[in-house]
Amino acid sequence: MAVTAISYHPAMVRWAPDSRARLVRAALELYGERGFENTTVAEIAGRAGLTERTFFRHFADKREVLFAGGSALEELVVGAVAGAPTESGPIDAVAAALELAGTRFFDDRDFSRRRQAIIAANAELRERELMKLHSLAAAAAAALHRRGVGEPQATLAAESGIAVFRVAFERWIDEDQPEQDFAQLVRESLAQLRELAAHA
Amino acid sequence: MAVTAISYHPAMVRWAPDSRARLVRAALELYGERGFENTTVAEIAGRAGLTERTFFRHFADKREVLFAGGSALEELVVGAVAGAPTESGPIDAVAAALELAGTRFFDDRDFSRRRQAIIAANAELRERELMKLHSLAAAAAAALHRRGVGEPQATLAAESGIAVFRVAFERWIDEDQPEQDFAQLVRESLAQLRELAAHA
Repeated sequence: MAVTAISYHPAMVRWAPDSRARLVRAALELYGERGFENTTVAEIAGRAGLTERTFFRHFADKREVLFAGGSALEELVVGAVAGAPTESGPIDAVAAALELAGTRFFDDRDFSRRRQAIIAANAELRERELMKLHSLAAAAAAALHRRGVGEPQATLAAESGIAVFRVAFERWIDEDQPEQDFAQLVRESLAQLRELAAHA
Repeated sequence: MAVTAISYHPAMVRWAPDSRARLVRAALELYGERGFENTTVAEIAGRAGLTERTFFRHFADKREVLFAGGSALEELVVGAVAGAPTESGPIDAVAAALELAGTRFFDDRDFSRRRQAIIAANAELRERELMKLHSLAAAAAAALHRRGVGEPQATLAAESGIAVFRVAFERWIDEDQPEQDFAQLVRESLAQLRELAAHA
């Protein structure tokens, strides 16, 4: 990946993370102002005070600015499911992993809220977001298989875990609510799922 | 919709449903033989012994041959959630609706299996399938809202219900298993979700 390659140049190490963050900030601003579909890579680079070439060193296209964190989140979830205590049940292993991932990734509520509004406004981005969540569920199910969990338990636990995660995320970015701790919201949503499942 | 319009011509009433079924059969055959992306509408119509014009009276494009049942399934699920006994909990209302829908729609295992293999082989079709399932979950959640179920319970119940449905469907089309009753598989998957959720 180009991002890794440029870290061979010591002088670039310092500015590279900053240029990436500037590109993300510029893209979010522009997508919010004029819509995702009406924004070009040249405009994003221009707003960030960088070149298009620099943009493409960090992102494959303008869509990836919004989804670049997804793979790292997936890796973290897979690692956390694998490392969950042996006695954890499948849903708990997934929920604990998503709680950890959320705590690491969702530290800027305003950013997440603006990103979500941009995605909600565009069909292609909504599809991409769904595919990412589906991929996250599949990765979590595969991590459960490696813990010896069979089917259909692994898929049920992974998909329910993702539902818990989405609900927690929606509540976390809800403008009508004061900011709450993401991990706490995951635990509450899981408790709600348990209660729903307990009532026949 | 054109399908409805042509039923004004009494002579056409008899062959219209048959031409639709012939188009679906021809499309499934061709997608299976040469792949979805390598099949044209002209070829589907030709194999069915019909014209392209007839094809477009029934389907907007070659993709819709695979997804045309989705809206009817969604309507049935929404209606069944609305009509569930007052005392049914949210997950039960959704699961019972999906059980009913599955029983009505999944009566031809060989057809469903071939359709699923075609979808699995094409990224665009996989995305479309995910979007349909997402739309089904959203419609079920909205039907729960109308029953007075709040958030996040409605979303958790709808999404978990869809996970139960997917698992039941995967088991139903599994070639290594003798054919089982779809409704029974939904009930078993729901019982498995309950058991998973009960274990902390």
